[in-house]
Amino acid sequence: MKVAILIGSVSDKPTMKAAAEILKKFNVNYTSYVISAHRLPDILSNTIKKIESEGTDLIIAGAGLSAHLPGFISSKTILPVIGVPIYHCNNGSLGGIDALFSMVQMPKDVPVATVGINNSYNAALLAIHILAIKNKDLKKSLLKFRMEIRKKLENEIEQYL
Amino acid sequence: MKVAILIGSVSDKPTMKAAAEILKKFNVNYTSYVISAHRLPDILSNTIKKIESEGTDLIIAGAGLSAHLPGFISSKTILPVIGVPIYHCNNGSLGGIDALFSMVQMPKDVPVATVGINNSYNAALLAIHILAIKNKDLKKSLLKFRMEIRKKLENEIEQYL
Amino acid sequence: MKVAILIGSVSDKPTMKAAAEILKKFNVNYTSYVISAHRLPDILSNTIKKIESEGTDLIIAGAGLSAHLPGFISSKTILPVIGVPIYHCNNGSLGGIDALFSMVQMPKDVPVATVGINNSYNAALLAIHILAIKNKDLKKSLLKFRMEIRKKLENEIEQYL
Amino acid sequence: MKVAILIGSVSDKPTMKAAAEILKKFNVNYTSYVISAHRLPDILSNTIKKIESEGTDLIIAGAGLSAHLPGFISSKTILPVIGVPIYHCNNGSLGGIDALFSMVQMPKDVPVATVGINNSYNAALLAIHILAIKNKDLKKSLLKFRMEIRKKLENEIEQYL
Amino acid sequence: MKVAILIGSVSDKPTMKAAAEILKKFNVNYTSYVISAHRLPDILSNTIKKIESEGTDLIIAGAGLSAHLPGFISSKTILPVIGVPIYHCNNGSLGGIDALFSMVQMPKDVPVATVGINNSYNAALLAIHILAIKNKDLKKSLLKFRMEIRKKLENEIEQYL
Amino acid sequence: MKVAILIGSVSDKPTMKAAAEILKKFNVNYTSYVISAHRLPDILSNTIKKIESEGTDLIIAGAGLSAHLPGFISSKTILPVIGVPIYHCNNGSLGGIDALFSMVQMPKDVPVATVGINNSYNAALLAIHILAIKNKDLKKSLLKFRMEIRKKLENEIEQYL
Amino acid sequence: MKVAILIGSVSDKPTMKAAAEILKKFNVNYTSYVISAHRLPDILSNTIKKIESEGTDLIIAGAGLSAHLPGFISSKTILPVIGVPIYHCNNGSLGGIDALFSMVQMPKDVPVATVGINNSYNAALLAIHILAIKNKDLKKSLLKFRMEIRKKLENEIEQYL
Amino acid sequence: MKVAILIGSVSDKPTMKAAAEILKKFNVNYTSYVISAHRLPDILSNTIKKIESEGTDLIIAGAGLSAHLPGFISSKTILPVIGVPIYHCNNGSLGGIDALFSMVQMPKDVPVATVGINNSYNAALLAIHILAIKNKDLKKSLLKFRMEIRKKLENEIEQYL
Repeated sequence: MKVAILIGSVSDKPTMKAAAEILKKFNVNYTSYVISAHRLPDILSNTIKKIESEGTDLIIAGAGLSAHLPGFISSKTILPVIGVPIYHCNNGSLGGIDALFSMVQMPKDVPVATVGINNSYNAALLAIHILAIKNKDLKKSLLKFRMEIRKKLENEIEQYL
Repeated sequence: MKVAILIGSVSDKPTMKAAAEILKKFNVNYTSYVISAHRLPDILSNTIKKIESEGTDLIIAGAGLSAHLPGFISSKTILPVIGVPIYHCNNGSLGGIDALFSMVQMPKDVPVATVGINNSYNAALLAIHILAIKNKDLKKSLLKFRMEIRKKLENEIEQYL
Repeated sequence: MKVAILIGSVSDKPTMKAAAEILKKFNVNYTSYVISAHRLPDILSNTIKKIESEGTDLIIAGAGLSAHLPGFISSKTILPVIGVPIYHCNNGSLGGIDALFSMVQMPKDVPVATVGINNSYNAALLAIHILAIKNKDLKKSLLKFRMEIRKKLENEIEQYL
Repeated sequence: MKVAILIGSVSDKPTMKAAAEILKKFNVNYTSYVISAHRLPDILSNTIKKIESEGTDLIIAGAGLSAHLPGFISSKTILPVIGVPIYHCNNGSLGGIDALFSMVQMPKDVPVATVGINNSYNAALLAIHILAIKNKDLKKSLLKFRMEIRKKLENEIEQYL
Repeated sequence: MKVAILIGSVSDKPTMKAAAEILKKFNVNYTSYVISAHRLPDILSNTIKKIESEGTDLIIAGAGLSAHLPGFISSKTILPVIGVPIYHCNNGSLGGIDALFSMVQMPKDVPVATVGINNSYNAALLAIHILAIKNKDLKKSLLKFRMEIRKKLENEIEQYL
Repeated sequence: MKVAILIGSVSDKPTMKAAAEILKKFNVNYTSYVISAHRLPDILSNTIKKIESEGTDLIIAGAGLSAHLPGFISSKTILPVIGVPIYHCNNGSLGGIDALFSMVQMPKDVPVATVGINNSYNAALLAIHILAIKNKDLKKSLLKFRMEIRKKLENEIEQYL
Repeated sequence: MKVAILIGSVSDKPTMKAAAEILKKFNVNYTSYVISAHRLPDILSNTIKKIESEGTDLIIAGAGLSAHLPGFISSKTILPVIGVPIYHCNNGSLGGIDALFSMVQMPKDVPVATVGINNSYNAALLAIHILAIKNKDLKKSLLKFRMEIRKKLENEIEQYL
Repeated sequence: MKVAILIGSVSDKPTMKAAAEILKKFNVNYTSYVISAHRLPDILSNTIKKIESEGTDLIIAGAGLSAHLPGFISSKTILPVIGVPIYHCNNGSLGGIDALFSMVQMPKDVPVATVGINNSYNAALLAIHILAIKNKDLKKSLLKFRMEIRKKLENEIEQYL
């Protein structure tokens, strides 16, 4: 099982850290690249081919503003693409709603599986859910992970407000 | 390969037709249910268990307004869940932005793969992309489908404006 | 008279403190729980049953992002549910408008009484208004409380601008 | 048990019909008035006093645009006030988001229990939930109503998509 | 010539300072009050009568959230009412768009002259423009003021970027 | 007493009719012009001078999209300017929110008194309130008008819902 | 002088007609293509090269939903790209705000000159303004065009409202 | 080749610095002015004439709030106008969406080439793209610039996430 994480700018690295951590937690290999869909389109095309040829199963892509990266990737491969709309505080990006609309409103034939704004954690977890369809070990790990979350949250139920 | 389509209300049927057609086109079996997450929560829980036990690989869920259905399902199963935000013209649903936010902004640990407003076509196609990760026949069909779309669109390129 | 306060995450505790203070001020008993609708749905269901069996009169629920908690509760009980849309600064939650839409736009048959973003103070006060319908002591306390607010605000009327 | 329904304009009557029907269904008496908070403020004040003196338990108020009616009422009585944001197609009311914000964002001390845009059905049902806190017959009727909805929806589950 | 400035909460005082300064600059007398439309409606009604009886010419009202104050005043007097939508950073008030909609979308017959979010400076200047219709001295002062602004801005034209 | 009504395009005429009717009802003279701020700026400047020289007391200006007309006028005269944000169904004008923001968010020193979207009726009524500051006959007419509205609305209070 | 008009879908043809008419009016040659950035990316890349080799001066691109077409083109050529956000009534495209954000919020280094929603007329006129920088005949035609518009609008100034 | 940069207020200087730096980088002469469209309209008109007479090729204009500056300039000259919507944190400007709508939604006949919020860098780069249509040296510089960006970004591709 193998995943690729792509982002459009080095400034998006901190936001995507949580995705990498989830993949590590589930022992899923991943490669990661910083390639702007607009500024390095040919390198991005080649990288997508390379990613495919390495047997990658799906791609997680994070981008901000007019966030075309996930859609661009989806147009170049039939691997499923998960998109993370990114915003950075006070950079004119309208709280991330520009990136959200640019990703989720993809036209017919080129789907992007969009998660919440800056929620790269869920993007990676969605990847695990997808990969677990056929991978029984991953399925077990995911069920165990859900149990651990339950445990952790069960300990927080009783709180004095 | 098997998919389940769930919607929260009979009024959502016309919007989800395109999803069913895509699944048929790819010869992917599917079951479909109209079960409100809020009004039949226990039946929904049981149906999700039944869906799982039948070897379903993923679930597509469409809902409008405070569209909780996909998130509810995601909380009950580790099958991947694809969400379609639905709106009907002039019913106070703010162009579908209420359903979009209710689906895409899911909290940590319970991801929903959200597609565009009323875009059930893309939801089903995303399902095909996901199922094609391991199913070589589906992968071939998907590549062929992309070719057919290309063909069709290539015939529309030359247009006098 | 008894109220239950539920939130979906420990991070929502500070926002809900004002609700607890209002209930204390009116000597209304309350229990409080941190239970995610998505991550502990069965515990939540059981807790709602427990809350009902203890003679609780109504439930206040606060949640952020795709804020399903109040709607989930409303689907499981006929106790009135008051919802508080929560947002935390700069967490990609669009100023709380995602939580607001996820709560207030509930479909037919499963109402949530929604108050303003982060306004847990008013949620608890609304609870007092509701409980005062039949409880004469609470009605008196509420009228007295309004008088006290009047007094306080009357002292602030004359201000040099 | 007694409810009052108030609206600010005769044009809001069709939107509020569903509320009246729910109240009739549960055999809850109600009175109804068309009184603009801005154009007949003194008559509204007097009507609120009259409503209180008649033993009314709660008030449902629907209004559009800068929808002040529910907040105005809440400032004049300690009866619980349920607000319905109303919009009419193409009248410059921004899909009802103006009325929603004008109601739900009430300041401290003057709560309005807001439901979804044009969703007067849920407003009345919320009223029933509230009145059922102490009225055992109403509680039974509400549980029966939920059962009937279940029945109806159970018959719609199996649909061929 | 006389103006009254009203705000709904002491927290709005800093935002309205600029209005007071403009009035002072033009030697226009003003009175100022902090009176919540919702929490002290009767005192507000009486104060409006007092303001009228003192020969006040117009009223400036600032408010946040469900900002009903200017509309309430407009319903009680035929003096022109200028509204300032107020927001305070990070208090759940959606950047002030809730207050803007609550003021500017007033229904027929009860107009509020709305200015920009937090722009109390312009509210007072609009008051001066209105009072200058008949007051020749004020008209002269206003023309002189415009000249002074011109002078100041003319000195800033040449800037090295 | 004299008012000028300006609009930017003939397509805005139907929306502004209600303003003309209110002015006629109060026997206030008005002139009206269709002059685009962007396409006939010099004619607009000259017309504003002409309007001033004819003793006009205030200006009502309606415009859609990037609705600069009222702000342009305000920059050329010290007469008070009332702005009406206009939208026409389905012309890409976002329900009128573009025109609203373009008018109400005017920078310091150049105020526009903005009313609700398409609400030219209130624009003209606001004009009457302003002119009534000093004109006793108009003040009487306005009080009488309010009484007539009251009468009309009082007859509509009792409605069976 | 030569322009290319590109759109992503045949459904966008009616919206772009006005652009073609403006170019014809100014005797500017243009070619037009319907090529989806996502479904025919390689053909689009080749067409852009062909467009460049034919001596085209600039490109107008219209697209809806996640409107990536203009940005994609801008990433492949240094010809200026003018973008038209397109929406079709009731297709889940949020009044065109999704296409607007997807175009105008382009990241550093890949600019798109964005015009108003569905305003292809202005896109073509902007092209004429740009081409007129160096083409004296076009400059003359543009000045003459402005005069004609003036004439037409001057005849509409005097309107009885 | 010559460009003019105009802004409406000295507070907009920091936001526009990036535009000046791009122009310097490409050795394109520019003049810069701080002239409010609303407060110095005649000086702005004269400056536009002066800019034209100096052989300026295009104009970049940045403005916030009801950002009329670029539209005003476009109405006075046939030089192409590039608009930058500006917002400053927490000044009531709604994240810059007011300035964006005020610029991009220009009516027919008066186009403004709008770029992203606060993105003056792209505004200047768009100017270079436009000027490069006929200027071969600039075209070469632009191609070289794109290469440099590529180089820089190619060095950032391999990042460990």
